[in-house]
Amino acid sequence: MADTPLHYRSATDLAGLVARGEISAVEVMRAFLARIEELNPQLNAIVSLLPESAALALAEAADRARAAGEPLGPLHGLPTAVKDLNHVKGFRTSFGSPVHDHDPVATRDAAMVAKLRDAGALIIGKTNTPSYGVGTLTFNDVFGITRNPWDLGRHGGGSSGGAAAIAAGLLPIADGSDSGGSIRYPASFCNIVGLRTTPGRVPADGFADAWSPHLVLGPMGRSSEDAGLLLSAMAGPTSLGPIAIDEDPARFRRLAEVDLGRVRIAWSANADGLPISPEIRDAYAGARRVLESLGCTIDDVELDLSTADRAWEAVEMFGFYIDAPEAAWANPDKLRPDYLRNIRQGRETPADELAFGIRERTAIFERTARLLQDYDVFVTPATPVSAPPAEVEWVAEIDGTVLDRYFKWQRLACRVTMTSHPVLVTPGGFTGTGLPFGLQMVGPVRGEHKLLSLGHAIETATGWVGQRPTGVA
Amino acid sequence: MADTPLHYRSATDLAGLVARGEISAVEVMRAFLARIEELNPQLNAIVSLLPESAALALAEAADRARAAGEPLGPLHGLPTAVKDLNHVKGFRTSFGSPVHDHDPVATRDAAMVAKLRDAGALIIGKTNTPSYGVGTLTFNDVFGITRNPWDLGRHGGGSSGGAAAIAAGLLPIADGSDSGGSIRYPASFCNIVGLRTTPGRVPADGFADAWSPHLVLGPMGRSSEDAGLLLSAMAGPTSLGPIAIDEDPARFRRLAEVDLGRVRIAWSANADGLPISPEIRDAYAGARRVLESLGCTIDDVELDLSTADRAWEAVEMFGFYIDAPEAAWANPDKLRPDYLRNIRQGRETPADELAFGIRERTAIFERTARLLQDYDVFVTPATPVSAPPAEVEWVAEIDGTVLDRYFKWQRLACRVTMTSHPVLVTPGGFTGTGLPFGLQMVGPVRGEHKLLSLGHAIETATGWVGQRPTGVA
Repeated sequence: MADTPLHYRSATDLAGLVARGEISAVEVMRAFLARIEELNPQLNAIVSLLPESAALALAEAADRARAAGEPLGPLHGLPTAVKDLNHVKGFRTSFGSPVHDHDPVATRDAAMVAKLRDAGALIIGKTNTPSYGVGTLTFNDVFGITRNPWDLGRHGGGSSGGAAAIAAGLLPIADGSDSGGSIRYPASFCNIVGLRTTPGRVPADGFADAWSPHLVLGPMGRSSEDAGLLLSAMAGPTSLGPIAIDEDPARFRRLAEVDLGRVRIAWSANADGLPISPEIRDAYAGARRVLESLGCTIDDVELDLSTADRAWEAVEMFGFYIDAPEAAWANPDKLRPDYLRNIRQGRETPADELAFGIRERTAIFERTARLLQDYDVFVTPATPVSAPPAEVEWVAEIDGTVLDRYFKWQRLACRVTMTSHPVLVTPGGFTGTGLPFGLQMVGPVRGEHKLLSLGHAIETATGWVGQRPTGVA
Repeated sequence: MADTPLHYRSATDLAGLVARGEISAVEVMRAFLARIEELNPQLNAIVSLLPESAALALAEAADRARAAGEPLGPLHGLPTAVKDLNHVKGFRTSFGSPVHDHDPVATRDAAMVAKLRDAGALIIGKTNTPSYGVGTLTFNDVFGITRNPWDLGRHGGGSSGGAAAIAAGLLPIADGSDSGGSIRYPASFCNIVGLRTTPGRVPADGFADAWSPHLVLGPMGRSSEDAGLLLSAMAGPTSLGPIAIDEDPARFRRLAEVDLGRVRIAWSANADGLPISPEIRDAYAGARRVLESLGCTIDDVELDLSTADRAWEAVEMFGFYIDAPEAAWANPDKLRPDYLRNIRQGRETPADELAFGIRERTAIFERTARLLQDYDVFVTPATPVSAPPAEVEWVAEIDGTVLDRYFKWQRLACRVTMTSHPVLVTPGGFTGTGLPFGLQMVGPVRGEHKLLSLGHAIETATGWVGQRPTGVA
């Protein structure tokens, strides 16, 4: 611990140190600003940043508040940056698209952002995202490609580009959002923890369908403990959320002790038949051996996800359509073609196709819920390949299967989205070439505490978290 | 109290008497069976009924369980009947349609029904409903018209035909379901209490969209206290419900004391411009004077519901479509034309029309939530007219406005459905001709306890509940 630089200390440790006055928020801020200055030019994970003086002023105010004996939130003095799909007062929201190049700066915080601020987080910038969050690789015409700290020639993953910043110690924690893997794929590629939450856990304002379980916000960190710390700030009851979960989120800062010898895992080879690369197959088998050696009971189980691809596509495209801003329709020439195709496809969704998606979502939810009466978690590989080269826009072939549209290589995530259950991605070890990959663990609805506690137990036992990325200093 | 016959005692009292052994479940059962035998031939509210011997056997078993010291549920020994849209093991589910005349009897209980049984309720039959729950008047080709105990020449209302049975003392409590007023209109017509619950409060299995906030199940009783008693059995956490509310429903049996002098009411004349008959306008004004005399602060407020009609129609028709059983599509000649038109319209819903409905639902939810930061409740008349003559299929004219489709006279309810907030209907007094009418009170999301407590306070202060219906002995 003593030789761990501040930027690689856990968010939980840092928050404790600041709260106890053992280090100042200014010291913490300086450490992360230095790291950003050093590495962000290579990683390109943070795309808007306060001037140093303004960031330090936030930290100074945090230190003054502590000195004055004010009540401190759980993230007091921790710097973070917000995914550039969410409004943060004082920053322009790019949505990763030149459509918004001349938008005014936001005059209010998104609900989740306001919660971060209330919890004492110091919001110093925005993290990169592909155009309107399309796909699980972060690149766009505004800011370019976000790269992977394990190998700068590869993608950091997306659409929550903040994962690369967390992995490389540019930020201790950051938010993400996920409808088809946008928290899970980058977490897996960068060897961090990401949590796709239960719909209703984190307030997501500004979306057209406040009941949709499809797109959710969630935390990312270098451990389940840190993800829990962030979730404790992001989540919480609100009368402004129709499906908001009325549970005090403070419990996510106190994870449970889990006896791995009593954990029952439903182990899916490939989420009901998806192509998986040999390197991931091998690494996933290795992870299984380790979990078994730790005492977990593991059964081979495939959940019936045969309708999930078609259902996801219907729901996803309709979702893109209903959430598309006027400015996007007005500027088709400025749109990424994949996105334009999505919103047009969504607009033409036949009622019976949407009905199929909705019915199957309900059916898959119920199958998953019943499976989780017998198992603690349902597990799949988080990604079918390790982080792809930075030149590609999507992975067009996996183990001999050719994929002709951007989202098809995301199907490990998309199929699991259709379970509508919370999903933790936690590191699962490394491939033969030393790249990280994650385990995708589906837990009971509203069961984030259970998932994070299990993740913490696995992380503590395996040491797969906390490895320093090999692509940066 | 001493001269109140058992069939008019409150469900809360009866449950207490049985639990304490002061009367037997058999005595209670005999009282309600006698009442059913006497009045159901005129009311036609209960359409399937156990043979007397089987009903008494249930009551005898309840008495034995009590004598054996077994733990007793909150409805122990209370007879009830279930709306005939829900499966009850051992009964055929008619859905109010001849399509199902030859269906086998159900082999399992719907989730809500299982909860009633677990709570000790004695399920003796099924209550009437229009074909597939279409409309707010109960009549169908299978069982005929359910009539109003205040005037047998009038409708009891629907689609929850059990309201008439409760009002006339044929049942102490009964379930309902509501997407466009199907709990609220019959409660208003019959002078009872009905609660449209927050989506996720009561498990509703068997529907195509487990996230839809449109159709909900809820309790009906002769008072808010009795509705709360029933809700405490119907509601509850479940991992099988994606938006299930994790709150112990036992609290609905312990309502709060409400000081009416501190209650702030947003008072809507007509839910943003709907036609209201002169008799209801007058009665509603009278209710306001009474509530003001009790100390309530009442402000004239109209919530913007200008998009609610179109949004409701899109969502409702699509909902009928996705929930329509195969047997309905296969037997169009046996279907009520209104229902056939609904499911066909739903099947042809353009994506942009559904998008409109979904977007506006979110917007109306948010407007309502913000209004309820300033007021305890938003109130409208529950119905625009008193119970209509039994001959009509819907009300085709109100105060000079001609209505050309069955649901248009339900719009006081439909518009409020689009707030997606819980709604209590509690008696509001009587019209000039002595017919009852209700107040429709919208409370905060997940705020059923607050609504029921307020309803209880109003009911206690006004005495509008508990009047004996004038159309039956």
